[in-house]
Amino acid sequence: MAIYTCGHTTPDSDSICSALSLGYLLNKIGREAIPARQGPVSPETQFILDRFGFEAPELKTEFAGCELFITDYSDRGQAPADLDKATVVGIVDHHKLGDITTSTPLECWIRPVGCTNTIVKEMYDFHKVEIPKNIAGIMMCAILSDTVIFKSPTCTPVDIKAVKELAEIAGVEDFGALGMEMFKVKSAVEGVPVRDLILRDYKPFDMHGTKVGIGQLEVIDLAIFDDVKDELEADLDKLRVENGLHTACLLLTDIMKEGSEVLVSSEDPSIFEKAFNVKLENGKVWLDGCLSRKKQIIPFLEPAFA
Amino acid sequence: MAIYTCGHTTPDSDSICSALSLGYLLNKIGREAIPARQGPVSPETQFILDRFGFEAPELKTEFAGCELFITDYSDRGQAPADLDKATVVGIVDHHKLGDITTSTPLECWIRPVGCTNTIVKEMYDFHKVEIPKNIAGIMMCAILSDTVIFKSPTCTPVDIKAVKELAEIAGVEDFGALGMEMFKVKSAVEGVPVRDLILRDYKPFDMHGTKVGIGQLEVIDLAIFDDVKDELEADLDKLRVENGLHTACLLLTDIMKEGSEVLVSSEDPSIFEKAFNVKLENGKVWLDGCLSRKKQIIPFLEPAFA
Repeated sequence: MAIYTCGHTTPDSDSICSALSLGYLLNKIGREAIPARQGPVSPETQFILDRFGFEAPELKTEFAGCELFITDYSDRGQAPADLDKATVVGIVDHHKLGDITTSTPLECWIRPVGCTNTIVKEMYDFHKVEIPKNIAGIMMCAILSDTVIFKSPTCTPVDIKAVKELAEIAGVEDFGALGMEMFKVKSAVEGVPVRDLILRDYKPFDMHGTKVGIGQLEVIDLAIFDDVKDELEADLDKLRVENGLHTACLLLTDIMKEGSEVLVSSEDPSIFEKAFNVKLENGKVWLDGCLSRKKQIIPFLEPAFA
Repeated sequence: MAIYTCGHTTPDSDSICSALSLGYLLNKIGREAIPARQGPVSPETQFILDRFGFEAPELKTEFAGCELFITDYSDRGQAPADLDKATVVGIVDHHKLGDITTSTPLECWIRPVGCTNTIVKEMYDFHKVEIPKNIAGIMMCAILSDTVIFKSPTCTPVDIKAVKELAEIAGVEDFGALGMEMFKVKSAVEGVPVRDLILRDYKPFDMHGTKVGIGQLEVIDLAIFDDVKDELEADLDKLRVENGLHTACLLLTDIMKEGSEVLVSSEDPSIFEKAFNVKLENGKVWLDGCLSRKKQIIPFLEPAFA
């Protein structure tokens, strides 16, 4: 039986690229694998796939009876709804350990690094499998995306080393320039419905029994949101109510200024204010230096709901 | 802050030896570590420690405010009671993925192999750290113990390769003979209180909300239990009631005949009978070929409680 390699719901570039890179590796070591994705491909990811000549992996949301090698998450909230009917044979991830459990032994490659593809690189090295040029390219782009071209506090020396080695294999001389090109694509918002923007890189969390949703948009210049910010705020309220969330946040991250404006819709905004020791103004606040949802938002917001 | 390396409650040889071997590795790569254990040292483990010149690691049951690198489990039921007040920085394990979660990224080295020390060996290789002779000795013994000298169905080629390499480093020519010597020590039951026997290698489980406890005694000849079996059965009943368990099992494993007699105390023994398609006689049954709690008991018993 083939193993599906698949990342989280609302897939980002790391989820799609790690499904492809891990899938290739498993096939190479004699374990038949099929890369998959749980949702649509973002413009950034499409740019990466086009740049290195890949088709998007198969869209698949039901995994009952299948073997699944999870990439880039370990939380049930980001898993297919029928996860309990699938067999999880492995997890490769770089987040906190989530609430997925299994009934049989599996392999977990979980590391506190900036990107899942950095760990997939470790797996290639462990299995002594050569990384093809185009696979190296998408892995490198995923790491540049997740680490915001090394600016994110989640970035580690292991990620930087991986990018340099992958760039060499992929034949990309100026990976910084390619990264900026990628973030320019990511920054394009014109004509995109606000709901699509909120959900582009959105993750639902269960914080001590409280439902919280956090989206993030990383752009080169925050000014592009000037015309749509009111609409974004109104739709964030709607999304919160529709999904029965206590709190819905949207991080508008300026990767050049290195900080985020956070839009907050909440049943009780004082929880957010206390968590970050800030005062919201019209449901918004600028958090200087904040680039990472994982490292600079969740560890502060989660304990606030305990 | 030093990282405590520590295995599960009611530690077996793998838990103690992996705390020591992982602790040494972490110190070598510049992360200060202190091996610890959550409970008493079994006769088998004492034999291993004596054979290679080790003191037992520090006894420690409270970890609030500490950093903890967990070895040999990922279930809360086997963790210190104050786990939520500790920071789990890593997990190295070879069981199914349990219900421990974290609020920060960590490193998990989880593999479907026969022993945690086999994975610690992988970690030494990854970090290119030389394994000292005596550390190699205790790692090798832990693998021989967990894999029942390669007879257990949990044993993989990776475990066998690790033992051979570790035996070479430890300067042990006949590791099979050493394994048998170890199991002879393990088989000694004379003068040991029955409760101590039941708890010697005992693990509590939460099976879909139902509390189940399973102990295992691996011996060279089952006949040694002839005189104490009635007492064991009576005490297993007592233990079940005292701990509010639905079912308590004790596997009496004959490693030479390669099978286990299972003593079953249960609120509803028919669940066990259905799970294994057997009929209990006076609360007991011989399961031919059954050597592994992890691979031949839990995967059948757990779904029976779903």
